[in-house]
Amino acid sequence: MGKVVKVIELVGTSQHNWTDAVENAVTEASKTVDDILGCEVTNFTANIQDGRVMEYKADCKIAFAVH
Amino acid sequence: MGKVVKVIELVGTSQHNWTDAVENAVTEASKTVDDILGCEVTNFTANIQDGRVMEYKADCKIAFAVH
Amino acid sequence: MGKVVKVIELVGTSQHNWTDAVENAVTEASKTVDDILGCEVTNFTANIQDGRVMEYKADCKIAFAVH
Amino acid sequence: MGKVVKVIELVGTSQHNWTDAVENAVTEASKTVDDILGCEVTNFTANIQDGRVMEYKADCKIAFAVH
Amino acid sequence: MGKVVKVIELVGTSQHNWTDAVENAVTEASKTVDDILGCEVTNFTANIQDGRVMEYKADCKIAFAVH
Amino acid sequence: MGKVVKVIELVGTSQHNWTDAVENAVTEASKTVDDILGCEVTNFTANIQDGRVMEYKADCKIAFAVH
Amino acid sequence: MGKVVKVIELVGTSQHNWTDAVENAVTEASKTVDDILGCEVTNFTANIQDGRVMEYKADCKIAFAVH
Amino acid sequence: MGKVVKVIELVGTSQHNWTDAVENAVTEASKTVDDILGCEVTNFTANIQDGRVMEYKADCKIAFAVH
Amino acid sequence: MGKVVKVIELVGTSQHNWTDAVENAVTEASKTVDDILGCEVTNFTANIQDGRVMEYKADCKIAFAVH
Amino acid sequence: MGKVVKVIELVGTSQHNWTDAVENAVTEASKTVDDILGCEVTNFTANIQDGRVMEYKADCKIAFAVH
Amino acid sequence: MGKVVKVIELVGTSQHNWTDAVENAVTEASKTVDDILGCEVTNFTANIQDGRVMEYKADCKIAFAVH
Amino acid sequence: MGKVVKVIELVGTSQHNWTDAVENAVTEASKTVDDILGCEVTNFTANIQDGRVMEYKADCKIAFAVH
Repeated sequence: MGKVVKVIELVGTSQHNWTDAVENAVTEASKTVDDILGCEVTNFTANIQDGRVMEYKADCKIAFAVH
Repeated sequence: MGKVVKVIELVGTSQHNWTDAVENAVTEASKTVDDILGCEVTNFTANIQDGRVMEYKADCKIAFAVH
Repeated sequence: MGKVVKVIELVGTSQHNWTDAVENAVTEASKTVDDILGCEVTNFTANIQDGRVMEYKADCKIAFAVH
Repeated sequence: MGKVVKVIELVGTSQHNWTDAVENAVTEASKTVDDILGCEVTNFTANIQDGRVMEYKADCKIAFAVH
Repeated sequence: MGKVVKVIELVGTSQHNWTDAVENAVTEASKTVDDILGCEVTNFTANIQDGRVMEYKADCKIAFAVH
Repeated sequence: MGKVVKVIELVGTSQHNWTDAVENAVTEASKTVDDILGCEVTNFTANIQDGRVMEYKADCKIAFAVH
Repeated sequence: MGKVVKVIELVGTSQHNWTDAVENAVTEASKTVDDILGCEVTNFTANIQDGRVMEYKADCKIAFAVH
Repeated sequence: MGKVVKVIELVGTSQHNWTDAVENAVTEASKTVDDILGCEVTNFTANIQDGRVMEYKADCKIAFAVH
Repeated sequence: MGKVVKVIELVGTSQHNWTDAVENAVTEASKTVDDILGCEVTNFTANIQDGRVMEYKADCKIAFAVH
Repeated sequence: MGKVVKVIELVGTSQHNWTDAVENAVTEASKTVDDILGCEVTNFTANIQDGRVMEYKADCKIAFAVH
Repeated sequence: MGKVVKVIELVGTSQHNWTDAVENAVTEASKTVDDILGCEVTNFTANIQDGRVMEYKADCKIAFAVH
Repeated sequence: MGKVVKVIELVGTSQHNWTDAVENAVTEASKTVDDILGCEVTNFTANIQDGRVMEYKADCKIAFAVH
């Protein structure tokens, strides 16, 4: 049977930038999942306070192999 | 590391209306997940019998904090 | 041959709320169609007068079995 | 006046596969419409029972000339 | 009960331009339907021959009151 | 010259339901705008606390005549 | 700091055609805004009476420089 | 309380065709989930080597009842 | 083997109107391609100067047979 | 410098089925391109004559490495 | 009455990168608006000259509380 | 005749970040095309190995003037 891949959705956050937010999501996913293959960022948002970006948020679809 | 949020998809149903269907989805999610933050309703459908709505269905994306 | 389902688009309206608007669309469809199976609401709009909602409108895709 | 084409939406079903489901929708449409020109499949779904696909369903937009 | 509006999809064509193609679709619809309220053009295409547009085609969603 | 309509985006909120959230957005708009014609709800979300919906939120596109 | 552009949404109307409707929207915007850069038409609709188009409507996103 | 349905996303693969890829995803899901109701295929892709399709891939949203 | 059609994307421009902009795109394509079959307009934009449209722009997907 | 991938759009056709239509598009692309990596099918349509599918058509985005 | 949030669209630009472009849009908005809550980036584009990116542009939907 | 712009799709990659991936795509395009005007990034993905991003990938639509 062909291999099967599962896709989950995580929102990573960071005080620094969106790339860091994505890496945080991937790091979190890798705590419970072994074989992450890739990710797609589907939304870029930010929380703002006093006219400055306080938190970068990246919606991530993360794909990993199912064994 | 910035906090991470997980998003799952549930379809709530109700014999009464869509708001009730969404609340049923949230209640079901809260049985196994502690820290639900919000939800987005992405689709509103209904099952119909004898020309009347029998079941309201709401596709919900439910977000909760990952600890 | 597998059964075939036809889908038509109706916009229901109501002075009360969107659920009522959807039910009006289903009731209208059931006058000429016997075997309605379900509906999907694809758009929620409203007409407004003097700063108040006068008419709720729901775009409905209504599916029924073809015999 | 230029010719006019009408588009209707049918969901074909089949126990075998999606191509068969589309052909069932086209066959059903051809019972009441003479001059079908083409079709576009906009959604591929399936009903599942006991872990196996029981029914393939194809949402079809079917275009035919209006005389 | 609130009034109900039905929406059908027609593709109008014209050798001249898209506005004319839309008007042809509306004219065709008005042959069999009395109370057309409006239309939305969802797609603009054209057939081309010898490097020139031969036929303008406009996908129209046409709405009319159901009595 | 034909009349012109302006469209603005407001997110209404309510502790009760989405219909109330939409009405709050319309009421807010009507404080500064005279001739509101209609609204379209483009997104339904909710904030959740302790497994219950605390705040219903409706993204509204609100149209009004420009004089 | 890089320049910033603001985008507003206007619906232009015309008894003649959609190009005229867009120009009406741009003309209206230029009454209160100096430095319009461009526009994108996101929706083409029409009001119909007695089987004829009475009003062409064009949803326009209009961009202008913020000084 | 109305029943609740959960939706997960799996990518099935196959060396033969997309229908087989979907069935592989459903079979994989049925190993850990009892009551699968249906699936929707949201994307059809393929890996290619030496000018030939090596692997058919189908993105599947799989729905199952939550007990 | 069935025939194959290639699709390219061109943005046509015109000082006059969008129809002219599309024709310019088709004329440009026909300089290097023989057998153009059709085109789809996917976006209508304009450049504006001194409150007037200076340039109409039409994003065109142009299809031609591959021999 | 990281590798770069180019994506082109071809519509494959077949008298037999959509899988065959996709393979025809890939085969055609492989005549002029060496290193095809994958493809995504973005649209499934068909031409119909006398109530039967005459031609299956698959819109394919085909990706290949740029050397 | 529940609080209401207004959403405006700004395009931020920067010679450096997209994060900087977003921050420029937020800074510009904060000149005239007090209580910005967040932003969503809906489009990433760039102007290019002599084969190099000259200007990064980010379409931002910026939300702020209405008092 | 108005000028015509061609749009091609490239996927740039980088080990460092998405901005670098976009610049790689633009650099590659500029090897064979003289007058690149701009680019739009339509998708942000990444390949992941051992729980870390190995390759950033940016889908770019690159526009250049046709002479």
